[in-house]
Amino acid sequence: MTEAYVVGAGQSPFGSFPDESYRSLFATAFDRATASVDAEFDPERIDEAFLGTLGVGGRQLGLSGPAVTEHVGLHGIPTTRVENACAASGYAFRSAVAAVRAGLADVALAGGYEVMTDTSSDHTKWWLGVSGETEWERLSGTTFSGVYAQMASAHMNEYGTTTEDLSRVAVKNHGNGARNPNAHLGFECSLDQAMAAPTVADPLNLYHCCPTTDGASAVIVASEDVAFDLSDDPVRVAGMGASSGHVGLFQRDTFTSIPATRRAADAAYDEASIDAGDVDVAEVHDCFAIAELVAYEDLGFCDPGESGRLLREGVTDPDGDLPVNTSGGLKSKGHPIGATGTGQITEIFEQLRGDAHTQVDDPRYGLAHNVGGSGGGATVHLFERTDGGDR
Amino acid sequence: MTEAYVVGAGQSPFGSFPDESYRSLFATAFDRATASVDAEFDPERIDEAFLGTLGVGGRQLGLSGPAVTEHVGLHGIPTTRVENACAASGYAFRSAVAAVRAGLADVALAGGYEVMTDTSSDHTKWWLGVSGETEWERLSGTTFSGVYAQMASAHMNEYGTTTEDLSRVAVKNHGNGARNPNAHLGFECSLDQAMAAPTVADPLNLYHCCPTTDGASAVIVASEDVAFDLSDDPVRVAGMGASSGHVGLFQRDTFTSIPATRRAADAAYDEASIDAGDVDVAEVHDCFAIAELVAYEDLGFCDPGESGRLLREGVTDPDGDLPVNTSGGLKSKGHPIGATGTGQITEIFEQLRGDAHTQVDDPRYGLAHNVGGSGGGATVHLFERTDGGDR
Repeated sequence: MTEAYVVGAGQSPFGSFPDESYRSLFATAFDRATASVDAEFDPERIDEAFLGTLGVGGRQLGLSGPAVTEHVGLHGIPTTRVENACAASGYAFRSAVAAVRAGLADVALAGGYEVMTDTSSDHTKWWLGVSGETEWERLSGTTFSGVYAQMASAHMNEYGTTTEDLSRVAVKNHGNGARNPNAHLGFECSLDQAMAAPTVADPLNLYHCCPTTDGASAVIVASEDVAFDLSDDPVRVAGMGASSGHVGLFQRDTFTSIPATRRAADAAYDEASIDAGDVDVAEVHDCFAIAELVAYEDLGFCDPGESGRLLREGVTDPDGDLPVNTSGGLKSKGHPIGATGTGQITEIFEQLRGDAHTQVDDPRYGLAHNVGGSGGGATVHLFERTDGGDR
Repeated sequence: MTEAYVVGAGQSPFGSFPDESYRSLFATAFDRATASVDAEFDPERIDEAFLGTLGVGGRQLGLSGPAVTEHVGLHGIPTTRVENACAASGYAFRSAVAAVRAGLADVALAGGYEVMTDTSSDHTKWWLGVSGETEWERLSGTTFSGVYAQMASAHMNEYGTTTEDLSRVAVKNHGNGARNPNAHLGFECSLDQAMAAPTVADPLNLYHCCPTTDGASAVIVASEDVAFDLSDDPVRVAGMGASSGHVGLFQRDTFTSIPATRRAADAAYDEASIDAGDVDVAEVHDCFAIAELVAYEDLGFCDPGESGRLLREGVTDPDGDLPVNTSGGLKSKGHPIGATGTGQITEIFEQLRGDAHTQVDDPRYGLAHNVGGSGGGATVHLFERTDGGDR
């Protein structure tokens, strides 16, 4: 079995783009991804594509995957649309790596796209509930912020986590996002501002919730045979983990952990033969501030209940021991559902090649963590720098 | 790289089931698939799942994959929902085979489900258009039967194909479906009946169109290492092909062929090192009668324009040289979108093990052909009987 490497990655700007379509946004991401390949890259080398989108926004409803690949000049290649809610492109990336490892593709494309701000469709009303459980959450009136608010309340109750802890996620991620020209909300916020924002779903306020965003991202995966020809410095896929969980929060034994993340992380660390202490930079799924805190604990960055301390001590700041969400995260960079997973991988790719907007010091291992819904699915991917010659 | 084998397969009854859900239908298919494994089979051996559904029917909108695997007792395994319109589970099967070949799974589950007859949602109105191109087909009023009607008109004009040729597809497939207890429309029809039915989209009449159906199907794929332990007679995945095409019919150079099918077939025959003449039994995507005729030509069963003759001469009858749609096909067995691809593979699995309701004589190679939309995507899979000892 061949190893798989990332040889190119890019994202469109994330934001609100009424004049763009899911196709034009993806074209921007794709052009940036191909441009990031060190060697001159002929897109016709791409054998197969896996594209993630939640995609109930009133545009192309079925078969949007082939509509996208055709739009970027990849007519005819097998194209699979993956939908695993907010983890759609995390899972799409997993399938792209599997296609390379299985020998189905020498070069595979993973990516995602979402247009969320188009309110011309009557389906936009679904956005905030569609990734929750339908019968007992969405149809009974629970919003998606309401689901994460319950997790936040439980975490506060069990561990004494505070509104200040939640707000520090926003301050850090907006600080990073302010340096990222692709961020949707690319401005800094103060702790006072983040503490005093209007309530969305108590205890979560506006600064504890990610925005509703349009955007796309694309990652090019290659087999070992071709990766070092295409790239001076390919990034190795060191470990993959994925797991499902109960779709409904109410079905779970715990509200203060996402078990799917724990299982996915265990699998990824196991495959990479490293542990959390080896990770040098991470993008984690901060759809709500509480999600970033819980991720620290589920990914093994700290013990349960210790995530607030990590933030207070600056461990996850860009100059800390384990910088998290240097891109700005979902909170500041934005969260165009299907584009998020491969958007995170784009940031890790850039970090491991020294090209990030908020570059951390000499990272070797990077982690990308993508969650579907409130934990109905999760992927964890580990990447290793190769320096071009470690093969 | 390990070879992949099908060791179990099953489908729920196809039909209109107002008291069933997508989960309960899938549970029936899954129970039948696991029961078809020759050795005692512990479902916990399944490492990963790929499930196809178009799934805009108002039920679980995001993350229905994990909701399904959990329902059948597979909590926690990575579960990817694939949507490629009517080819959703053909593509899901491709990913399941890739996961096995890549070593991600020793045993993988592929399947699909669809609830189409629930009219309580305002989204059911989409069903007939959702798989067409949105901007220039669906939103301009072209129904899905209208798209295939244009293909039928073109085929009649170019090759002299007749309403009688179209009607013979219905007569043959209903004859087969009448022997299949899982068929939605499990009754015979005469040529006179099929000729005289009311027009749906000229030149297609009611007997030239498949029904709107609820149902589910499941296929269990295993690596070589475990396949012969689990099964006395596993079925080898001999070749896989998949391709995308223009989503809109109007974008294509030809209305009398589906180029994605041709490319997918070429890839599958190439991998299996066989040609169309070696195929002993096939399930092809007859969402409309014209689609079966075009499939004969695109899959190489005959030259362009010769498909009507194949039907008239009985070549694709159960006792002909190349029996097609012995299950009843989409026309009689039914077409629950996401369930169709792995439903077709279920029929081929049963044929190659001698267990089919309309069993053909001693087949060695079987073919399953699944189309997304009007040809925006297609998969072709080739299977070979092993007789349990050819390893």
